[in-house]
Amino acid sequence: MHLDDFLTEQWMNEHENDAVYNMTDTCVKPLTLRELFAMDADGVLQDVVLDYGTITGDVRLKQEILGLYQSGTEENLTLTHGCLAANELVMYTFLEPGDRVVSFTPGYQQFTSLPESFGCRVHTIPLKEENGWMPDDSDLEEAFREDVRMLIINNPNNPTGTFFDRAMLEKLIRYCRRNGTILLSDEVYRGRSEEEVSVSDLYEYSISTGSLSKLFSLAGIRLGWIKASTELISTLNVRRDYSFISTGPLADTAALAALKQKEMILKRSEDIIAGNKAVYEKWLADMPYASLVMPSYGPVGFLRYEADIDDVTLAQMLLRDHGVFFVPGSCFGMDHHFRIGFTRDTEETEAGLSILGQVLRKANCE
Amino acid sequence: MHLDDFLTEQWMNEHENDAVYNMTDTCVKPLTLRELFAMDADGVLQDVVLDYGTITGDVRLKQEILGLYQSGTEENLTLTHGCLAANELVMYTFLEPGDRVVSFTPGYQQFTSLPESFGCRVHTIPLKEENGWMPDDSDLEEAFREDVRMLIINNPNNPTGTFFDRAMLEKLIRYCRRNGTILLSDEVYRGRSEEEVSVSDLYEYSISTGSLSKLFSLAGIRLGWIKASTELISTLNVRRDYSFISTGPLADTAALAALKQKEMILKRSEDIIAGNKAVYEKWLADMPYASLVMPSYGPVGFLRYEADIDDVTLAQMLLRDHGVFFVPGSCFGMDHHFRIGFTRDTEETEAGLSILGQVLRKANCE
Repeated sequence: MHLDDFLTEQWMNEHENDAVYNMTDTCVKPLTLRELFAMDADGVLQDVVLDYGTITGDVRLKQEILGLYQSGTEENLTLTHGCLAANELVMYTFLEPGDRVVSFTPGYQQFTSLPESFGCRVHTIPLKEENGWMPDDSDLEEAFREDVRMLIINNPNNPTGTFFDRAMLEKLIRYCRRNGTILLSDEVYRGRSEEEVSVSDLYEYSISTGSLSKLFSLAGIRLGWIKASTELISTLNVRRDYSFISTGPLADTAALAALKQKEMILKRSEDIIAGNKAVYEKWLADMPYASLVMPSYGPVGFLRYEADIDDVTLAQMLLRDHGVFFVPGSCFGMDHHFRIGFTRDTEETEAGLSILGQVLRKANCE
Repeated sequence: MHLDDFLTEQWMNEHENDAVYNMTDTCVKPLTLRELFAMDADGVLQDVVLDYGTITGDVRLKQEILGLYQSGTEENLTLTHGCLAANELVMYTFLEPGDRVVSFTPGYQQFTSLPESFGCRVHTIPLKEENGWMPDDSDLEEAFREDVRMLIINNPNNPTGTFFDRAMLEKLIRYCRRNGTILLSDEVYRGRSEEEVSVSDLYEYSISTGSLSKLFSLAGIRLGWIKASTELISTLNVRRDYSFISTGPLADTAALAALKQKEMILKRSEDIIAGNKAVYEKWLADMPYASLVMPSYGPVGFLRYEADIDDVTLAQMLLRDHGVFFVPGSCFGMDHHFRIGFTRDTEETEAGLSILGQVLRKANCE
């Protein structure tokens, strides 16, 4: 089935290895296997038998994941190889050709190109920079004028950092309730603050997906999950049997060891994100050619710049000449922006921004 | 999209944990993480950084995988989370609604139910027990009377153990060449003997899939791969970006450590399979109510029994009353058969067969 190129992922795949200053990484500075083993005080990793393990996921791991939510039992969870695979499984399971799917733009391309590839009608609601990357009420109303099979959100959102708080989620859920629209919420960038409510704790036809890749700094384990009602999970598991059997004891147990230390890991990530945000705040205060809607939560933002050069060309030039790596906004359909990540050592961020500053000043004939 | 229940996998998921004598496991006795670490003489596992890693797979791992084939470079490989995910990616990438797909029966249900779920027309060629589970030439001819988009084989085949040698593969390839039919060969049960040729070394429109789950005794790593022409791999990678980004450094590096010891692991598996086959041979010599086409290669076979009781009822009774676990042939569309695996300790196999023997004799009023 025809599928458009995944622009962001292809950009990352092609260029990331050339980065000296990686300004666009969305995963908080990764942990090493050595650090993970050092965390494994209970020694859960040692005696792992490398068979398929428990098919829908290690029960002890599911208990730890439930600690990230306000409600739910093991029956409300099924594990996947990362959050992308979780979203894919949800879309393949619940969407049919011709179904109307609503999402937001700029947003993660999987939410639109994948359902389009099997014949869904996809409608996107603009997130408006002048509104702090929030949608207009009139555009929401318009989107729900027809029956919507699935509303897909990313909370916080990649690339804009848009955060939907409880009030906003409840507004979206009111629209969804009209016709039993499934609300798929990719919560891969969700942290542990009380404000960061999961839709799976609010609405019976919601499906929340998450993983250890971003705030848990463990993309290398490739462990994600889906949380939903037992009925939805049981339907998802029918298709899951055709996709990958299990996530397996290696990933499950590594994830278990990590989640037992979730407070420590999340605190580390919060500190890294806060440090990088401070570097951006300082840089922006003295930079007339760039602006940023600073996200409330999550490690991702969408920087706007002013210069008479398109973002793909500028990103290529920055990488080639200076090793400074951004994903251009054009990969998300919006020129003159860079997707940024607050995830690396602050020294790396400072150095990259310093170079970007010089380049922008020069491009603006300072 | 509607998808039939995956009968074998559901049977395994529901019942496997109750097994005392697991007679149907297709994975050769799994290794432990401790054993894997002990094998890692080069210490590749120690300093792994748990980021996404190399997107299409660790280059060192690809080199080791290529050692299982006669031809190919890194560009001919992309890694997946197991062989099932590899097959799924191939089908989603190259099949369109309405396409004709040909496979064999009894066979692995993914090859028929998955393409049916998105509107392919699936034709199955019978494997005939009286022919040693081989197909008739006339049925092959019949299958290719129309244009075939994809021929899907499993070599050796689950559940029958059917092995297609080089001559048979070349016969199939002659049919495929007529219209450029893609030949997808699930080679998850392939071993290292010279007779076990991979179609990816024979035909330019072939796609071979494999994994560490069966003969490598490492299902728990969830590491599979796809081998094909660079053009086909590059098309597959477009969709792969929407599915799971990477298999990740944890799985890749664990797989690398294992494949560096592939001779040792495969020798261990060959010995285990041979030991179990000998137990079956001995048991069958004295058992008038069962027969088996003994497979030339692989850990899987399809036992036929005689008794006035259907296979689902008999399998349930054996498990409930005796802890003896088989997958009934009905999960593959053929009653009065059990899918068997030559994978466990011979003592376990002997004990399970002894109980099965008593039950069959009793059912036949001996």
